[in-house]
Amino acid sequence: MRTNSLMLREIREQPQALARTLTSAQSVVQELKKRFATRRPRLIILVARGTSDNAALFGRYLLEVSTGIPVSLAAPSILTVYRSKLDLKDTLVVGISQSGESTDTNYVLEWAAKAGAATLGITNRARSSLAKIPDHLLLVKAGPERSVAATKTYTGQMLALYLLAHALGARIRMRDLQRLPELAAKALETEPEVAERAERYRFMRYGVVVGRGLNYANAFELALKLMETCYVVAERFSSADFLHGPIALVEPSFPVFLYASPGPVWRSLKEILDRLEALQAELLVFTDRGHREAYAARRRAIVVPEAVPVCPGMPEDLLTPIPYIIPGQLLAAYLAREKGLNPDRPRSLQKVTLTL
Amino acid sequence: MRTNSLMLREIREQPQALARTLTSAQSVVQELKKRFATRRPRLIILVARGTSDNAALFGRYLLEVSTGIPVSLAAPSILTVYRSKLDLKDTLVVGISQSGESTDTNYVLEWAAKAGAATLGITNRARSSLAKIPDHLLLVKAGPERSVAATKTYTGQMLALYLLAHALGARIRMRDLQRLPELAAKALETEPEVAERAERYRFMRYGVVVGRGLNYANAFELALKLMETCYVVAERFSSADFLHGPIALVEPSFPVFLYASPGPVWRSLKEILDRLEALQAELLVFTDRGHREAYAARRRAIVVPEAVPVCPGMPEDLLTPIPYIIPGQLLAAYLAREKGLNPDRPRSLQKVTLTL
Repeated sequence: MRTNSLMLREIREQPQALARTLTSAQSVVQELKKRFATRRPRLIILVARGTSDNAALFGRYLLEVSTGIPVSLAAPSILTVYRSKLDLKDTLVVGISQSGESTDTNYVLEWAAKAGAATLGITNRARSSLAKIPDHLLLVKAGPERSVAATKTYTGQMLALYLLAHALGARIRMRDLQRLPELAAKALETEPEVAERAERYRFMRYGVVVGRGLNYANAFELALKLMETCYVVAERFSSADFLHGPIALVEPSFPVFLYASPGPVWRSLKEILDRLEALQAELLVFTDRGHREAYAARRRAIVVPEAVPVCPGMPEDLLTPIPYIIPGQLLAAYLAREKGLNPDRPRSLQKVTLTL
Repeated sequence: MRTNSLMLREIREQPQALARTLTSAQSVVQELKKRFATRRPRLIILVARGTSDNAALFGRYLLEVSTGIPVSLAAPSILTVYRSKLDLKDTLVVGISQSGESTDTNYVLEWAAKAGAATLGITNRARSSLAKIPDHLLLVKAGPERSVAATKTYTGQMLALYLLAHALGARIRMRDLQRLPELAAKALETEPEVAERAERYRFMRYGVVVGRGLNYANAFELALKLMETCYVVAERFSSADFLHGPIALVEPSFPVFLYASPGPVWRSLKEILDRLEALQAELLVFTDRGHREAYAARRRAIVVPEAVPVCPGMPEDLLTPIPYIIPGQLLAAYLAREKGLNPDRPRSLQKVTLTL
C-alpha cells in the first residue's frame, strides 16, 4: 500500500503554497490594476489544457460574475490547427499552464501578443517558455509539482484568477483572499474521513460529478482526477445540463458526487439532489459547515469543518471552490491507493503533454 | 423489437428537413446580411442547452474558423442564477432551442435584447416563446420532433449556423450549403451496416467519443445520444484534451468512437488513432469515402458513401459535420433497440426540460 504518494504530499502543501502565491503576486496585481484602471478589456479569452483548463473554467465563472466582462474559453485548434485569425481588439488573453511548456497554450498566447491583445501568463515555472511571452506574469508559487496528477497548482491557478478579478475591479478584497490558506488548511482536516470512505468505491468503474456556477469547474477537476488516477469513467455536468439528458443514466446505486455549494446556485442543486435521491442514486456530497441546509439534509456528506466566509456584495459561494476541491483531491488519491494504483504515474501519461 | 422508433423515422427525414430549412431561410439570411454588412459584431455569444448546446458548440468552431469573430458559449447561470450583468456592446447573442421554451435560453436572450445586444433566435417552433424575443429569427423547418432524442433538429440547427456564418461574410457559398441535403441522404445509406454493427455493443456500459475542430461537437452529440437512449456512460473529448489525462482510462478493449475527419485536424486525429491502436482500444471510426487516408487505414469504420466536397478557401472538413453525425444517430437508435430500450422515451426525461 502506497501510504504517502507524492500526490497526497502535494495536496497537503496547499495552505503554504497559497500563502506564498498571495505574497509574491502583490506587485503584479498592482501592475495589472494600473494597466486596466482607465480601460478594462472588452473580452477575456482564457487558454489552457487539462487541469489548467479546469482552472480556466473556474476563472470564466469568477470573472463574468465578479467583473461583468464576457469571457471565452479558447478553442486552441482555431489558431493552432485551422490557422484562422481572430479579431482580438480590446481583448485580454490569459494563458494558464503548470509547466509553462504547453505548446498550444504558448502558441495562442504568442499569436495574441502579435495580434495586439493584452496578455497575461499564469504558470508555476518562472523559467518556462510561457514566462517569456506575455505582458504580465502571475507566478503560482506552489513549488515543483512532481506527481503527474496536478493538485496544488490547480488551487494556485484558481488563486491567481481571484487576483486577476480583484485587479480588474471586482468587489473581492485582498483580505478575503487572505483567508484562503486557512480555509485550505481546514479542508485538509477531512483527510481521515475521506481516507476511510474511499474503500467503498473500490470497484467503481464509472460515475458522475455534478457542480454548478463557481464550483462547476470542480466537477470537471474531480472527474479528471478520478479518470487519471483511478481509471474511473467519470462524467461531469452542471446540475442544469445534467437534467437535459444525462440524468437518464441514473439507476439505483449509480454513483454521483455533488458539490453542494451555498448561495444562488443552491436551489438548482437542491432540485437535483431530490431527483437523485428519488432515483436511488448513490450520492456523496461535498459541502461546508456553514451551509447547514446541505449538511443537515445529507447523511452521506463530506463537510469542510470551517464555514466559508461571505464577502459583501459577492455571491455566498465566492470562496468555496478552493476548500471544496480539497476533499475531492483526497478522495482520488485514497481511491487510487484502494485500487492498488500509483496516482503519481498514471498509465499512458507524462507530466507535460505536448499537443497542437 | 422496436423496429421503427420515432427516433429512426426522424433521422431518416433529415434530407427533406434540411432542404426545407434552406429554402425558407433565404429572406432572413438577406436580412442578416444587410444588418451586418457595414458593422459586424465584435463578439458572438451562443446560448443553449442539451442537444441545442451541442449545435452551439459546432457553431462556435464554425463561426470562429470562418469569420474570425470571437465566440463564447454562454454560461446561462451567470445571468439566470447569479444575476450578474455582462457588458454586451457590439455583441450578437444567438439563442438556440428546439422547442423555443427553454427557460434559461429565453431569459438570456431577453436580457441580451434589453442590454442592447443584437439578437438572433434559432428554433424549430415558429409559435414558441423564443420566437417572440429576438431581432431576427432563423426557423428550423424540421417539422414536429416527437422523439425525446433530438436528431433532425440538431442538423437543422447546424444548417442555421452555416447560414449565419454565410450572412456574416464567411467564404461559404449558398451552393455549398445546397449540397447538404444530398450529403445527408448519402449518409443515410449507412443504415443497414450500422444496424448490423450495433449488436456488438449490446453490453457496453461506458465508452469515449473523440472528435476535433468542426466535428468536436459531434463527439458531444453522439455521447449525449448514447447516454440518453442507451444509458451508456459516454465521455466526449477533443483528441487534444483526451491526451491531457483521460487517455489513462484506456485499457485493452476499451470502446472508443472517433470522428476521423479530413483536413487540418487529421494529423492530430491520426496521432490519437495510433496511440489507441497501440493501447488495443476497441475502435470504431466514422469517416467518408473521400478521406482515403482514414478509410484505407481503419478496418473498423463506418464510411459515408459520398466524398464530402471541398469548399474553396475553407478547411476541407467544412461540410463533414452533418453527414458524419448521421451514422452516429443511427448507431444510438439501433443500439437502444438491441438493449431493449425505447429511445423515444428515455427514463427520467421529457421533451422540454425547464431549468434556470
